[in-house]
Amino acid sequence: MEEKIERLKEILHEIADLSHASALLDWDQRVNMPPGSAQDRGTQLATIEKLVHQKATKEELGKLLEDLSKYVKQLDPDSYDARLIKVAKRNYNKSTKVPTEWVGEFAKEKTLATSVWEKAKPKSDFNSFQPHLEKLVALRRQYADFFKPYDHVYDPLLDDFEPGMKTAEVQAIFNELRPKQVELIKTISQQPQVDNSFLYLNYPKEGQLKFGKEIITDYGYDWNRGRQDLSAHPFTTSFGLNDVRITTRLHPKFLNTALFGTLHECGHALYEQGIDQALNRTPLADGASMAVHESHSRMWENLIGRSYPFWKKFYSRLQEIFPSQLGNVDLDTFYKGINKVEPSLIRVEADEATYNLHIMLRLELEIALMEGSITPTELPDAWNTKMKDYLGIVPPNDAKGVLQDVHWSAGMFGYFPTYAIGNLISAQLWEVMQNDNPEVEKQIEQGNFKEILAWLREHVHRHGAKFEPQELVEKVTGSKINSSAYIRYLKNKFGAIYNL
Amino acid sequence: MEEKIERLKEILHEIADLSHASALLDWDQRVNMPPGSAQDRGTQLATIEKLVHQKATKEELGKLLEDLSKYVKQLDPDSYDARLIKVAKRNYNKSTKVPTEWVGEFAKEKTLATSVWEKAKPKSDFNSFQPHLEKLVALRRQYADFFKPYDHVYDPLLDDFEPGMKTAEVQAIFNELRPKQVELIKTISQQPQVDNSFLYLNYPKEGQLKFGKEIITDYGYDWNRGRQDLSAHPFTTSFGLNDVRITTRLHPKFLNTALFGTLHECGHALYEQGIDQALNRTPLADGASMAVHESHSRMWENLIGRSYPFWKKFYSRLQEIFPSQLGNVDLDTFYKGINKVEPSLIRVEADEATYNLHIMLRLELEIALMEGSITPTELPDAWNTKMKDYLGIVPPNDAKGVLQDVHWSAGMFGYFPTYAIGNLISAQLWEVMQNDNPEVEKQIEQGNFKEILAWLREHVHRHGAKFEPQELVEKVTGSKINSSAYIRYLKNKFGAIYNL
Repeated sequence: MEEKIERLKEILHEIADLSHASALLDWDQRVNMPPGSAQDRGTQLATIEKLVHQKATKEELGKLLEDLSKYVKQLDPDSYDARLIKVAKRNYNKSTKVPTEWVGEFAKEKTLATSVWEKAKPKSDFNSFQPHLEKLVALRRQYADFFKPYDHVYDPLLDDFEPGMKTAEVQAIFNELRPKQVELIKTISQQPQVDNSFLYLNYPKEGQLKFGKEIITDYGYDWNRGRQDLSAHPFTTSFGLNDVRITTRLHPKFLNTALFGTLHECGHALYEQGIDQALNRTPLADGASMAVHESHSRMWENLIGRSYPFWKKFYSRLQEIFPSQLGNVDLDTFYKGINKVEPSLIRVEADEATYNLHIMLRLELEIALMEGSITPTELPDAWNTKMKDYLGIVPPNDAKGVLQDVHWSAGMFGYFPTYAIGNLISAQLWEVMQNDNPEVEKQIEQGNFKEILAWLREHVHRHGAKFEPQELVEKVTGSKINSSAYIRYLKNKFGAIYNL
Repeated sequence: MEEKIERLKEILHEIADLSHASALLDWDQRVNMPPGSAQDRGTQLATIEKLVHQKATKEELGKLLEDLSKYVKQLDPDSYDARLIKVAKRNYNKSTKVPTEWVGEFAKEKTLATSVWEKAKPKSDFNSFQPHLEKLVALRRQYADFFKPYDHVYDPLLDDFEPGMKTAEVQAIFNELRPKQVELIKTISQQPQVDNSFLYLNYPKEGQLKFGKEIITDYGYDWNRGRQDLSAHPFTTSFGLNDVRITTRLHPKFLNTALFGTLHECGHALYEQGIDQALNRTPLADGASMAVHESHSRMWENLIGRSYPFWKKFYSRLQEIFPSQLGNVDLDTFYKGINKVEPSLIRVEADEATYNLHIMLRLELEIALMEGSITPTELPDAWNTKMKDYLGIVPPNDAKGVLQDVHWSAGMFGYFPTYAIGNLISAQLWEVMQNDNPEVEKQIEQGNFKEILAWLREHVHRHGAKFEPQELVEKVTGSKINSSAYIRYLKNKFGAIYNL
């Protein structure tokens, strides 16, 4: 059995190395690659992904996992080996259920749909995108059917991002959250609005980068095992646990884009840099799920990076870098400005209080599409109706409505809920951490993030993907994922800002 | 047969894609990678190289090539398909002759030897390096023996870099060249020396980079299919024909390093960017050999970039960028300064007239090591004796002598001669080009490189690795590789500079 587990690791290491090469090809494409190489790069990525799929579905691997599943009963169920076998088996079962032809067709369709969407969005031309969306929805429903029987057609899609989580669980959480969040926004909208016009001045790029780098260095980002570059869309990627890179986008006339984007990506990176090195080159060297990952990016961006104690410490430094822009803006005005709540059309620019409603809207539409209760043709109207219901505004066109996000054109149904669930988890973790360490706010005010990071390392990071998301959250917080902490957080924070 | 050739290409494309992923991992390691990931990157590279080796030695490939070798007789012998089959067969035969265990042991030993060399060099400590060199020499002799029978033990090593070329040919060429080059240097040394002290001033890095970029843009480097970065050792690499990247090293107090380094690497890149796109993702999408590659880098660096017409055009621009450094240095002084001939200890800093002697010294020692006529222990003394004979100077220590180059620590025996052969080829090509286009010098004086590039594209670039180096040179120039043109070039150029 020792030999078999060694052989298993050998195979998993090889798959990990290949996947990391593929991740580097992707990172390079988005950060460095000269445009003339786009087609070649596509072919290189396809070749490596095909190899990864071949290796991940090889009979030898299935046989090994079969044999090891019996042996696993003799192991401590929480040991790395037991968990590795479990996760590898789950991945293997998922990979082998999906026929290679489907993988090929889906890859082709999503590349095509993305290129159509890229042209359709600026022209607000939903009609040209609609047949491709139709095709992708059909393919995704077919994908779900490979995993029959299921409780809900959306379950297999969700499971790709949130292992073990069910659609019904997410719906229950969101059903409880939605009215409270709608209510909060309504209350805020009746109060006098805060000013944030100073965020839209000329902010030289060098200063923006400099400040961001200083903060994430203080956060504890390990530059010896990472780097920061520029890209059109910010993202975090890793090639093993010792090379976790972030990218940032700079907006010359809006301070938030680079600033909070950098803190957000740093949150993702801190998670991956904190995973136990013993898990390197295995499927456990990853976050527990996308939502748990997102809980970290949102925590470092919002719960820390948009908090009052944080700016009490760092605002004078920001003023020093941008004296003409912020010299006459006092701390309170700045703090309120970066936390301004205002229903808006674009998800990625939404504030903390309205953000989750953007997600719920998308989740409901995704589920309806998968169930077949609405068709892609009906989507723009359904979108606008829900925007009116939840946020009280209606997009003037589809570019600012149903066409705004890239996800659907990439066939990524099942991903959106992870953003909102991540917010909820961030608040759940935060409450427990504050309980363990009542000095948290004082430490932030001193620019000291060491104990926050140490707590997260101990309770979350080091485990990697050892636990499923519900299991992990329950283990750390004593409860399953729920919205209570997040609602408390929102009420407390925005109650103070808007004098509720 | 059509089907078989399609299948062959499929396999070769897959190998090419994997090799390009490996090349990107390597480029990234030298340009971007955070230091903490060195070990992981080594593992990733090893995994991919193992996969490439597996695919390159698969029985199916051997069988296909066997079958296709009969079919090839029906094809035009100069067609891409015929040449592809021939080159693929040569590569397959070479790869399968080398046992996988040897590949593994060699990879391990050279990594170890390189890390020992890196420490030994600054301490000038040959003794610590000696046992590793011993081991590598033994492994390389063993490698040669896999290719028995051979005319000379050095042949299989040389063949890795110069397909089809024999040690005896290189020796014959060098035996003719050596006395003439020694004689030339002696004559020059009796003349009054030129001044080049102005090259060693403070040259701000931005200006150095800017000038280099302007020139290689004029040379015709295609930025849509390439980019330039900084690295500790300059190099050119490619991930297919549409992404050919160069790197540059900047020295803040020596103008030549970045300037001529950039022109040199651009020469390599122009070659690869000029290969026929029909050859992309095959073993023919490469230079004909390392020497032919080097003929291009040396041509754009020296025959063009250190020529009088070139500086007649561009010197005023360089003065504009560095007014305080070069404002009072006139064109003639500058031209003579960048072409100063002076026997020196370090190969990479050697001028055009002495450079080849550094190479001949190494080649003779390499051959003697492979023949067993000297042992690694005797190497430092043998080195110093030859330095005295050829260049009239003796290194004060091994750091500036036998330990100066990385090649031997990486087991790269067989590579050095390509540098000198490249110089010879550059002059051979140049003479024919000048014959075809007598306006070459005038065009350089106008900063117009279009026809030079077009000539190289037509006669050399587009063919990629279709022809072996001797075959290519004979096809283009009417003669095999020889030193006559280069000696004429040196005498002509340095005769004028040193009033011989």
